Parts: sequence; C-alpha cells; structure tokens
Amino acid sequence: MTESQISINSLLAPESVAFIGASNDPTKWGCIILKNMLHGGYAGPIYPVNPKEKEVLGLKAYASVAALPETPEMAVIVIPPPAVPAAVEDCVKKGVRAGLVITAGFAEVGPEGKKLQTAMVANAKKGGMILIGPNCNGISRPSANFFPQMPSIFPGSGPLAAVAQSGNVAASLIRRGIKKGFGFSAVFSIGNEADLHCEDFLKFLGDDPETKVIVGYMEGFKDGRRFFNVAREVTVKKPIVMVKAGSTGAGAKAAMSHTASLSGEDATFDGLCKQSGIIRTDSIDDMFGIGTGFLNQPLPKGNKVGIVTMGGGWGVLAADTSANFGLDVVTLSSRTIARLDEILPSWWNRGNPVDMVAGTVGGVVPESVRILMEAPETDCVILLGVLGLMKKRPGPSDGKPDLVEKQIREALQDLSDAFDWLKSLSHQYQKPLVIASEIPFTLGDFENRMVQMLGQKQIACYNSPNMAARVMSRLVAYGRYRRHYSKMKPTEGGKNGIQGA
Amino acid sequence: MTESQISINSLLAPESVAFIGASNDPTKWGCIILKNMLHGGYAGPIYPVNPKEKEVLGLKAYASVAALPETPEMAVIVIPPPAVPAAVEDCVKKGVRAGLVITAGFAEVGPEGKKLQTAMVANAKKGGMILIGPNCNGISRPSANFFPQMPSIFPGSGPLAAVAQSGNVAASLIRRGIKKGFGFSAVFSIGNEADLHCEDFLKFLGDDPETKVIVGYMEGFKDGRRFFNVAREVTVKKPIVMVKAGSTGAGAKAAMSHTASLSGEDATFDGLCKQSGIIRTDSIDDMFGIGTGFLNQPLPKGNKVGIVTMGGGWGVLAADTSANFGLDVVTLSSRTIARLDEILPSWWNRGNPVDMVAGTVGGVVPESVRILMEAPETDCVILLGVLGLMKKRPGPSDGKPDLVEKQIREALQDLSDAFDWLKSLSHQYQKPLVIASEIPFTLGDFENRMVQMLGQKQIACYNSPNMAARVMSRLVAYGRYRRHYSKMKPTEGGKNGIQGA
Repeated sequence: MTESQISINSLLAPESVAFIGASNDPTKWGCIILKNMLHGGYAGPIYPVNPKEKEVLGLKAYASVAALPETPEMAVIVIPPPAVPAAVEDCVKKGVRAGLVITAGFAEVGPEGKKLQTAMVANAKKGGMILIGPNCNGISRPSANFFPQMPSIFPGSGPLAAVAQSGNVAASLIRRGIKKGFGFSAVFSIGNEADLHCEDFLKFLGDDPETKVIVGYMEGFKDGRRFFNVAREVTVKKPIVMVKAGSTGAGAKAAMSHTASLSGEDATFDGLCKQSGIIRTDSIDDMFGIGTGFLNQPLPKGNKVGIVTMGGGWGVLAADTSANFGLDVVTLSSRTIARLDEILPSWWNRGNPVDMVAGTVGGVVPESVRILMEAPETDCVILLGVLGLMKKRPGPSDGKPDLVEKQIREALQDLSDAFDWLKSLSHQYQKPLVIASEIPFTLGDFENRMVQMLGQKQIACYNSPNMAARVMSRLVAYGRYRRHYSKMKPTEGGKNGIQGA
Repeated sequence: MTESQISINSLLAPESVAFIGASNDPTKWGCIILKNMLHGGYAGPIYPVNPKEKEVLGLKAYASVAALPETPEMAVIVIPPPAVPAAVEDCVKKGVRAGLVITAGFAEVGPEGKKLQTAMVANAKKGGMILIGPNCNGISRPSANFFPQMPSIFPGSGPLAAVAQSGNVAASLIRRGIKKGFGFSAVFSIGNEADLHCEDFLKFLGDDPETKVIVGYMEGFKDGRRFFNVAREVTVKKPIVMVKAGSTGAGAKAAMSHTASLSGEDATFDGLCKQSGIIRTDSIDDMFGIGTGFLNQPLPKGNKVGIVTMGGGWGVLAADTSANFGLDVVTLSSRTIARLDEILPSWWNRGNPVDMVAGTVGGVVPESVRILMEAPETDCVILLGVLGLMKKRPGPSDGKPDLVEKQIREALQDLSDAFDWLKSLSHQYQKPLVIASEIPFTLGDFENRMVQMLGQKQIACYNSPNMAARVMSRLVAYGRYRRHYSKMKPTEGGKNGIQGA
C-alpha cells in the first residue's frame, strides 16, 4: 500500500477509535452515531470522550483525548465547531493518525467558519493527521463492520464504492443498495473536503481490492486538475460513474451554500469527463443503476446491439433509447435470422428487437439470447423480460403458506440457474448482457427475495427498457474510452489538456 | 352520453358477455383470460362459446353465438385469426354491440393478416358493432370488476386511465399502479386499432367522470389529424401524458413489426403535441410518474418554484433539474427570508432551496412549506424529504411484533395527517406541491404500507429530487397551455395547423 492508502485505511478500518463528543442523549448525533457504530458490530475498542460523563452507552468515558489508555488509530469528532481545532490538536499530540469530522458550521456558513476550518486543518497537518469532513455524515466500511455515520442504515459488504460531497446523497445510495441487495466496499461522505479531497478517496478506491466500481456525487472541486489526473489513472482500472451537480445557475448557488463549492463551467467539466473516462450522469438513480450495471460485465467492442424482448412495446422503447444514445440496433444477418427461424414460431417478426411474442415458453428465450450472443454482427445484447427464462412457472397455490414458500424457493432457484447461465454466456462471448424486466409474477414476498438474490449475485435487473439501453450505451462509451486509452502513448494525454499520470 | 360513449361503455361495463374461444386448457389464453374475468368478480352472465365443450371453468358452454340464450352486450374473441371474421359476423347477426379481439396475427404479420383484418372490420360495420383490437391484451374497468385481459393483475379503481398500443406497456402501467396504490378508471390495450382508434378512447375518457388524468403509449396513428383534434378537445378538460415510441429509425422499424404502425416524423409529432397540450415523455416510468403527479393538483400560474429540502444534495439536484426544465428557482424576497429567520436556526442558508439542515425537527418543516406557499414570489413548491413532517418518530421497538405494529400505525397516521394538511395548503393557495422523499425509516412492512396509503390518497411521492422537478416542469407547461388556450378565440387554433374543435 502507498502512504495515502495506509492513511485512508486508518479511517476505514482502524484498530481503535476515540469518539469525541460521545453523548447519552438520544437526540444528539454524539449518541446516534455511536449507537450506529455499536450496532454495526465494530470489533475494536471505542473510547468515548466526554468530560461530563462516566459512561456513554455502557462504555467507559474519558475526560479528554490525553486521558485515553492507548493511542486510538482514528477519531470521530462530533463537538461544536469552535471546539474542533483544539480537539484536533489533542489528537495530534496523542498520535492519532486520522479524523472524521462530522460537525457542520465551517466554511459553508461564512468567514468565521472558514477560519475555524483553516485552523483545524493546520493543526492536523502539524502531526501528519488526515481529516475527512467537516460537514459530512460519516463513512461506512461494511467489511470491517465500521459505520461511524449519521443515518442508521447498514449496507452489506460488496464491490460498489461511493464518494459523495453530500451526506444525504450518500445515504440515498446506501438505501438503494440495501433495497436491491447490493453491498458496498466503502461509502465516504466527504463534506467540505477541508483536508482530504475527493481525488484522495478516488485514488484509494482505485487501488482498493474490494472495489470494482466507483460512484460519486460532486458539486465542485478544490483542485480540478489533480482530480482529473487521478480520475484518469483510476478509470483505466475501474469505472467511475459521477453526478456533477450545480450545473445550472440555480444549482450552483445552492451548491455554494451547501458545501461551499464553486461549481465551475459545466461544459468544461463535461469535456474533461470525456477526456478522463468518467461516466457522467445527472441523478442518483442513474448513478446507482449504471454503477451496478457495470459490475462483472465484459466491455463491448463496438456499439452494435441485439435485443430480445418478451413484449413489443418494451422492444420499441429499447430500440428508440438505444438509437438516441448512439447504439446501432443492428440489422440481423440472414444466418442469424435462419437460426432464429429454427426455434421461433412462423410469425415472428424477423427483426431486431427479436420479439418473443406473448406466451413464448420453454428454452426458446435463452436460446434466442445465445444466438444473438454468437452472432458476429452484435457487440452486446439486451434482454427484456425474464419470465421466459424459467423452466417452470408457479402453478396455483390457493394461498397455502407451505405451498407458497415451496413455489417461491423453486422459482428463485430456477431464475438463479438461468441468471448464472446468462452470466457465463456473457463471459464466454465477451459481450455484455443488460437485462430489464417486470417482476414476473406476484407470490408472497417473491419480489423482494428475487431482487435480493440478484443483488447478491451482483446482477442488475432494471424495471425499464429505457434504462437497460442507457446503461448499455454507457458500457459502450466506457469500452471505447478504454480501447482508445490503451492505444495512446503515455504523453499523448497532455495534448487534450490533461497531464499524463 | 354521446353515441360513442354508449358504445365504448358496452366494451367496458357490459350487461352480459360472450366469450368466443373459451377453453379448459390452462395453457390457452381462452382459459387464462376467462379465469381473469371470473377472478375479477364481474357480476353479469358470461357465456363461453366452444363447440367441443359442455362446460368451461364451471360455466355452461355453447356451440355457437347463435345458440346463446340471450344477446350478449359484448364479446371477447380469442380464436385463431382465420375464424375471426365469421365470428364477428355471428355476433352482428345476434345483435352484439361491441367486441374485444385479443387474437394476434392480422395486419402486423403481413398481407394475409391484413385481408382478414379488413374482412373482420367490414363484417362488424354491417351491424354497427364496434371492435377493439385485434392483437391486444385486453381491457380493465376496475369499477365494474371487469378484467377481460391477458395478464393476471388486478388494479383497484381510481382516477387514472391508460390507452396503450402495446399490451405489455399497459401491463407495466397496471403493475406500477398496484405497487404504488393508485387505481385506474380504465385500461385499454388497443392493438392494431382496426376499428376503434386511440382517439375514440381519448374522446370517451375525456367525458368519463371516473377519469381525471389520461396516460397513453402510442407507436403511430391511423388518423393523425383526427387524433390531434380530439386530443385538443380533451386537454382543455384533463391532462394527457403520452409516450410516442418509434421516434428513431430503429424504433420505427420495431414499431412497424409490432403494431403495423407508421411512426411518422418525430419533430412533427413533437410540434403537434405542443399545439394540442399533450404532455410528451419517453418512458413508462415518466408516464406513470407524471400522470399520478397531476392528480388533484391546482395548476401553477407561472414557473417560479420554491424548494424546501431536508438535505443539501437533494436540493442542488432539484435546483439543477428545475433550471434545466425551464423553472425559475426564484430568489426569495427579504420578507420571506425574514419569516423563515423566525423559525430556522441561525446558520440556515437564506437561499432557495431552503435547506432544513440535518436534524431539523418539530413544526419547522411544515411551517417552512407554508411560508413558501404564502410567498407572493412563488407559483409552486417542491418539498424534498418527509421525515420532518412527522410530529413524533418511532422509537426503538426491539423487534417486538405488537410494538412494531403500534409504531407503524402511529407513524402512518402521523404522515397521513401531514399529507392531508399539505394537500389543503396547496388548494388554499392554489399552488401545486410536488414531493420527493426517501422512505423515512425502516420498520416492518412500513414502506409498503406508506406507499399504498399515499397512492390511495392519490398523492405521488417520488424517490428522486430530479423527478419532482421534472413533474413540476410539466405542471407548469400544462398550466401555461391551459391559460393560453382559454384566451384563444375558437378559430385561432387553425392557424397553428389544427382545426378548432
């Protein structure tokens, strides 16, 4: 690990933690965040610091950082702004390596806060202590059961990482992850970026073996040039999907009062994203949807898409969206048509999208996907509707709980096998497969269990044909960037305004 | 009721029904659709017609339409294409007023099918019988418990109506309705529109007292001029939110093979939408989201939006999206700022969005919404986050089922009161209020019950700030159209290429 890797690791998975501002008052963040850490199951010692309490939430409390029995590796800081610079000084004296400053009321509120923020950072730098925040709502490292964070939500461990300048956007991402069964390697709410910047976390995540895809929400950059240099290093290893907010006058004003961020020219940012391989989007849902859609996908070698659909309207919507986002809904070759003719009913549409026509059952749907995967004219495949993947559909259960449970389990196993097969197909042909479907039937809590099952397999299944096509278009764009980059000489990047890494 | 009203009423809520092609084979549509009708609880007599069966699903079966003991008001037709023209002739001879032709394999498959379709319509016209379809998946009229449809999904009764040229898009809309607790007045899957066209259903729904908002999915129009004339009549009474698919070359090709629709020039359609007040969108989710967002909303008198947010990032995203879609994120007057100063903590951002800052509780959030509603500088208000509306938040329940249930009920009542109050506020000031929020906490099956509660109140609550702003922008555009139209002389429309209604 590099030095910065080691440092950020002290934030994410420390040996021990001081909690400065721990409280027994359940309405205070000093209580809620500590509770979240305890609930999360962090294994190391936590030392509450509060001069007025003997115990906080059952843990022995200490009057000061100086009084702690050992040097904690990191500190969570939740005290009012004026007291923070001194607390950081205390941490430095004790030898604390890293601090998470939750407290708000710094640069984002005006010159007074700005002064406190500057003093806080100066004190940290004296001792080589790194800081995340202030004005943030915390971090999560599920693999270390470490959740020093404001929201009481606990995602599982997984390959998605998030960096957000907004705490409530970070929380929105976590909520989507929990709902869809996707886990996180790390979530950083980075607030005002007084010390560590967005790019420090990107750099860490680029090298973090737990992380496969990075999603990010930013309103502005402290050091745009460094950010883009780091992004460029990272995107040749793993994708970064990013919302850059504050892109309009109204949004920029709101961003200024939110995280004291100067949003900058939107067109410039857009251009720099294209040059650095960042996948830009404009909403939390797209960021999460595209991010999860990139997990475990081979990158397409071109923009030619084949579509298999269980319903005509969905097919038309996917074709429109594909075309609008630069994909080529490729004309199928006579050889591919002939192969489909062998398995599809006589009246099939002989076009792309391949319309399965209502009621098509049996192995026809998976076989059609295989034929489009094998077809030399496609670079990638979209599948709309998963009902046709099932070998057997649940019969009537008359609401009998035992039978319902049995049917749900059989259906989940059936779908699980089908998705595993599709994933292996996708890797065999090195073409990405993006899937959208309605939940195929209503049966007890089947929907939730199906969604969780897919999330745990790191498979995104969208509920809209438009979204499937949009995600595919981003896979194509990222694949193009990666091919282009691999051909470039190391110095060539400079010509486009970005220095070589 | 006009004559066409009476006729379409025969399709939606007939006194009695013949089911031509009824079957006991559970894999056949003639069985599945009949089962759906029985499950739906239709009260009138159903006469299965099948020369080979004595009984179908427990109902006495008849060898032919001629053999039925009375004249059924409508007929559901599920037999193979070559037999359909004769069946329609039989219906006409018996005096049947309306037919629903589910069967596919007509104009959409080629010249042979086209011939059958022409013969079928000619036979119907001889007796003044109207037809919906062919190549459709049915209709629903929940208020009449009438569900002659392919999918086994049963929405409640409500104010949303849907007209779709695609059966699976109609089903997607129904699924979204069930999931979100919104009911439908009617759902028409209109297929090839051999006899009745999209505009016939629009006209009916325009006069239908059960219907408040119409959503539609179309790939092409049989008679574009008539469609726009009807749309223009309807949109001065109620909004039409529409997806026009086949807008790209790839989509148009797919539409041709799907419903034999000529998609036409997309830019022309776009212009005609603007002139006829149709709210155009491009996805099923937006169609449903915008459609439900229009229910029970006063129309804004201008584009000036005030935003109250529980989180900074959500506020910035809403401000960006508002600005991108033509809303003015208005600068708050000094009087409004002063009023907010009285209730908000000293460090509040004094801008729009009004940022509640993490942890704001009590009556501050609803009071801030009221202040923005009262402010003369706003035309409409967006609220992001509903947790702050609650008088009391659920405490720890330790998973005890009785306590969890009690807490869920209290929380639902608390939120229900808050939403009722917000609705009355919106009507008092005649300014629309659009709300987006995460589900505020995790507690048993609270999420689903909260969503259903809101749907039953006909309140849309989005999970994305971008969507809230997009919906508001459509309310503003529709409000502008309605104001503009009300000022126009009846003949003026002709200048824009559309004849006066």
